[in-house]
Amino acid sequence: MMEEAYPIRTDLALESQESMKKDRGGLKGVDFQEEKRENGITISTVVIQTENAAKSMGKPRGHYITIEAPEMEEDDAGYHREISMELAKIIRRLLPESKIGKIDWQSLDEELEISVLIVGLGNREVTPDALGPRVIDNMFITRHIIKEFGKYAFGSEKISKISGIVPGVMAQTGMECLEIVRGVVNETKPDLVITVDALAARNAKRLGRTIQLTDTGITPGSGIGNHRNALNEKSVGVPVLSLGVPTVVDAATIVSDAMTSLIEAMSLSNLEKLDESEKQELARELLSPQLHGMFVTPKDIDAAIKRLSFLISEGLNIALLGNKEKTADI
Amino acid sequence: MMEEAYPIRTDLALESQESMKKDRGGLKGVDFQEEKRENGITISTVVIQTENAAKSMGKPRGHYITIEAPEMEEDDAGYHREISMELAKIIRRLLPESKIGKIDWQSLDEELEISVLIVGLGNREVTPDALGPRVIDNMFITRHIIKEFGKYAFGSEKISKISGIVPGVMAQTGMECLEIVRGVVNETKPDLVITVDALAARNAKRLGRTIQLTDTGITPGSGIGNHRNALNEKSVGVPVLSLGVPTVVDAATIVSDAMTSLIEAMSLSNLEKLDESEKQELARELLSPQLHGMFVTPKDIDAAIKRLSFLISEGLNIALLGNKEKTADI
Amino acid sequence: MMEEAYPIRTDLALESQESMKKDRGGLKGVDFQEEKRENGITISTVVIQTENAAKSMGKPRGHYITIEAPEMEEDDAGYHREISMELAKIIRRLLPESKIGKIDWQSLDEELEISVLIVGLGNREVTPDALGPRVIDNMFITRHIIKEFGKYAFGSEKISKISGIVPGVMAQTGMECLEIVRGVVNETKPDLVITVDALAARNAKRLGRTIQLTDTGITPGSGIGNHRNALNEKSVGVPVLSLGVPTVVDAATIVSDAMTSLIEAMSLSNLEKLDESEKQELARELLSPQLHGMFVTPKDIDAAIKRLSFLISEGLNIALLGNKEKTADI
Amino acid sequence: MMEEAYPIRTDLALESQESMKKDRGGLKGVDFQEEKRENGITISTVVIQTENAAKSMGKPRGHYITIEAPEMEEDDAGYHREISMELAKIIRRLLPESKIGKIDWQSLDEELEISVLIVGLGNREVTPDALGPRVIDNMFITRHIIKEFGKYAFGSEKISKISGIVPGVMAQTGMECLEIVRGVVNETKPDLVITVDALAARNAKRLGRTIQLTDTGITPGSGIGNHRNALNEKSVGVPVLSLGVPTVVDAATIVSDAMTSLIEAMSLSNLEKLDESEKQELARELLSPQLHGMFVTPKDIDAAIKRLSFLISEGLNIALLGNKEKTADI
Repeated sequence: MMEEAYPIRTDLALESQESMKKDRGGLKGVDFQEEKRENGITISTVVIQTENAAKSMGKPRGHYITIEAPEMEEDDAGYHREISMELAKIIRRLLPESKIGKIDWQSLDEELEISVLIVGLGNREVTPDALGPRVIDNMFITRHIIKEFGKYAFGSEKISKISGIVPGVMAQTGMECLEIVRGVVNETKPDLVITVDALAARNAKRLGRTIQLTDTGITPGSGIGNHRNALNEKSVGVPVLSLGVPTVVDAATIVSDAMTSLIEAMSLSNLEKLDESEKQELARELLSPQLHGMFVTPKDIDAAIKRLSFLISEGLNIALLGNKEKTADI
Repeated sequence: MMEEAYPIRTDLALESQESMKKDRGGLKGVDFQEEKRENGITISTVVIQTENAAKSMGKPRGHYITIEAPEMEEDDAGYHREISMELAKIIRRLLPESKIGKIDWQSLDEELEISVLIVGLGNREVTPDALGPRVIDNMFITRHIIKEFGKYAFGSEKISKISGIVPGVMAQTGMECLEIVRGVVNETKPDLVITVDALAARNAKRLGRTIQLTDTGITPGSGIGNHRNALNEKSVGVPVLSLGVPTVVDAATIVSDAMTSLIEAMSLSNLEKLDESEKQELARELLSPQLHGMFVTPKDIDAAIKRLSFLISEGLNIALLGNKEKTADI
Repeated sequence: MMEEAYPIRTDLALESQESMKKDRGGLKGVDFQEEKRENGITISTVVIQTENAAKSMGKPRGHYITIEAPEMEEDDAGYHREISMELAKIIRRLLPESKIGKIDWQSLDEELEISVLIVGLGNREVTPDALGPRVIDNMFITRHIIKEFGKYAFGSEKISKISGIVPGVMAQTGMECLEIVRGVVNETKPDLVITVDALAARNAKRLGRTIQLTDTGITPGSGIGNHRNALNEKSVGVPVLSLGVPTVVDAATIVSDAMTSLIEAMSLSNLEKLDESEKQELARELLSPQLHGMFVTPKDIDAAIKRLSFLISEGLNIALLGNKEKTADI
Repeated sequence: MMEEAYPIRTDLALESQESMKKDRGGLKGVDFQEEKRENGITISTVVIQTENAAKSMGKPRGHYITIEAPEMEEDDAGYHREISMELAKIIRRLLPESKIGKIDWQSLDEELEISVLIVGLGNREVTPDALGPRVIDNMFITRHIIKEFGKYAFGSEKISKISGIVPGVMAQTGMECLEIVRGVVNETKPDLVITVDALAARNAKRLGRTIQLTDTGITPGSGIGNHRNALNEKSVGVPVLSLGVPTVVDAATIVSDAMTSLIEAMSLSNLEKLDESEKQELARELLSPQLHGMFVTPKDIDAAIKRLSFLISEGLNIALLGNKEKTADI
């Protein structure tokens, strides 16, 4: 249903906003701000404020913060560190104040004490969908050590309890991710769930260069695979932050956008009258059977996933544990 | 504590029974039967009948059935199929009658209808501990298909609902396996949990050649890693069958056994007076610091794990779905 | 250069032939035959006979045999076995007579004695490019056993010497595949090289359902990645058979085909006059920057690669060793 | 043969030297120096100077430099960086002067220009044997970029050409590593080969805490698996440096050492007269059938391999490219 209503598939609120702006010159109930840094990083914030706006955008109400770094795909450790720090700040900004109290989220030195379950969504066996599982591989997991030895094992007054899980995809488990996550949350009672997933973008130029963080959880149809049934505060029982990076574009979207460009470029008057959904329909008719279930991804996706999983786990580790190295003394 | 009381580490009830027999000429409350097949396969059944016997054996009351096939490690598809069929029968024999009714467990043709969660314990990244996760990779998962399309998607009147999970190890997740499994069971309500795990044996000649199936769940200290907190009907809430294959021997055990042999062979009168635990103590004193946390495993363990994971998943698939190929027609 | 001359990217001679037929009603110097079996399998043979035809087709002179099995992607072991047998026959048909003598290639019972290096091209870390490496994982490797124990270790009069290598991709090795393969061939002197690679098709419906076997080696630009520098008898020094399965479509091809369909469907007279390369050019202009280096692949590609790598290694094992199980008795 | 003559299996010259010293109070023709750093790192140098000494030590003539860092297995990025720097210096010290000219090996700032093939020995599928392949995954490979774009792509006057290969193990390839490496060296003509391999130690306390670097190549029987046929300047055609980390102890060694300790501790006079090889023989008789082909390894070997492969690749990257970050500008 959702899929028919919002045929242009993107998991990025930024792209939905761009599309709305183009079609209608903006949208009531959606706030948009953009900040360009000197280091080439752009931070955009989309706030969907009303139910009407949520319906039009095809995304739930809440905050969507996007970090765009055109050179994220380059192999430059220093630059990646900068992005990790930006990411850590944005994560801190969205942490629930009820759990951590008032903090200056722009400073990363402060130590926190919050109990977080990181969920690595996606399929480890399919490269562009492996981001979530690989981030878990690189997280600094502390919960079991604190449980057994106490927080003083880390020589800190304050230390966050971090646990992680890779639920797998439904074809491998026979279960919805939501079933697994809800079960684990009920047993282990974290203050917060943070999901990490590979996303679908509309624009191929964003693949591997954009990180979205939202406090709305994961919306149905998100991700590459079939992670159905929303993971959010309502369904899971604790607040859910969702962090994602677009790694694929839906094949039908690529074709549809190409047609739009063609039609515009050629001034094909008999086609120009078509609205977006009619063009979609046309694309679907011409191509659907063979493109169904296909996605578009870059050839160097393995290197990109490797880099991104380090960058994101570093961002999470810094956000949750503070910006200094931790070691357990046990 | 357990570890001091039962210093010779084995996860095989068969080996505990052998050890008891040798030391004391048998044990009250333990029933033992052995059946040798023409094809070289031996099936042994140890039944621990009383709490006293359980205490002496260091294993909970219940049935422990062991399949020994000396040529299991050879690369012979026909022979593996035979073992899978034997395994399937033994699995059927231990399925709870309250769920499946009365069946002739020696026949594999009958179709069953039971809802089972298969749990692949262990660490996918450490070869001898990867058996459980690899078995899940090869299972025929049906739950999500039945949930969405009904059992008629398989063209059968009866079909078991199979789901699977790889909980990971505590160092990667920060959580006990029990916490994850209990959470998932609470959400998805299977009739039965079957765990699959790599085990520790006492005798290196059993590595990769023995399958143990028990209706007691997994006892503390089992497995290679630290899967603490027993998974059994009491802790999980539904019956738990546990299937395991020994893939390692504890390094201290190897050394301790060698010393025992040495002492016997040399008729070292001043040492012969030592009882088992004094010899253990001696072995420990001489070696402990460097062998702590070490295990012994065969060099061709990767090929063994690959073969065994196919063999076991085939046994489970046949047991739960009946001995004919299934395909979903969706 | 090649890429500009033959902008529609396909590694399947069958598709080049289809395209030629459509555009020009057939091509001199290209022979085409098609045989449809009762089991739904179609076997097509394209023979490129002349240099002119080779130039037009963008593929070297030689035989290209294609097995199409629409249900190859389904999970049916019996059907896969049938395809493996067909594949084995076709492999036998293309084996060099100078090495194996005259055989009845339609019978698979005969044992052969030929020394073959199987080369698994592609990148194990990128799912749709992992076919070659995964096939090597499943090959029955015999060369080292024969070298050490003699062929009687297998209890056979005749047994093929099979070796295998996964050269990796240039970004991981810094070397051309050709450099590695040529070096290994010079050292180990096989009679024949058989390469296995993931291919690019033009038509998404062929992904995972088509196997191409050719005696021409691998042509420049083939495969998903950058396996440049042809591997063929001339460059490698021994005959090269190449076996491939399309697992991706170039993103630009998808878009270009969509445009062609659009233009045809809409009868856009001002565009219909464009020839194929002008349409390509148009597609490129409209889209190139963001689709450069992108490919299209199915969402269930991991399961497909797993199935296909078994199917192909079984076909190779049967072709080279005869249709009965082998075990080394050492 | 070698194996019978030198039954105590260790790949560390340092351990052979210790054993010689203990038995005979030192050895003519073997020079030994040890340097303890403030940071807890110990650097030892064993130089085997004569053929006689080589025979007694069971290792070829040449330099064996060992870095021991007791805390190498801890998770401390700063400390790992220090070890990588030490390693880089030692690698520079053993680089052939004929290729790089005179350099101050203690300084890592100087850029070099040498063409090196890194060979990752071992089996990626068996955790303690996966060190070599994992190091290749982390190397900064430059040869193909320099070949295509020239060294100015790196903005440097001087840049080393680095290529890498994972030859696989004989059971997977049917070929000796030597055959593959010699073939690749003949084709690509590097100045130098550097092998990386997991080693066997005698003393379990050295596992994962010791790096050995030698200019003698790899001696027969080294490594965990069967990488037979020495890789050295004579067999390969260019100088061979070999870098290794002990990750396993042979199971028979552990037992044999335990017996020696027992005999010493108990003052078993009838056994004390046995010399080393008689004790070995005794251990063998008591235990051999079941320990044959078994090894001992730590339980946390996966984390250790991950850390060590980063540490070593960083050492190699710094040694060969100089101590500043490189990025290709292409």
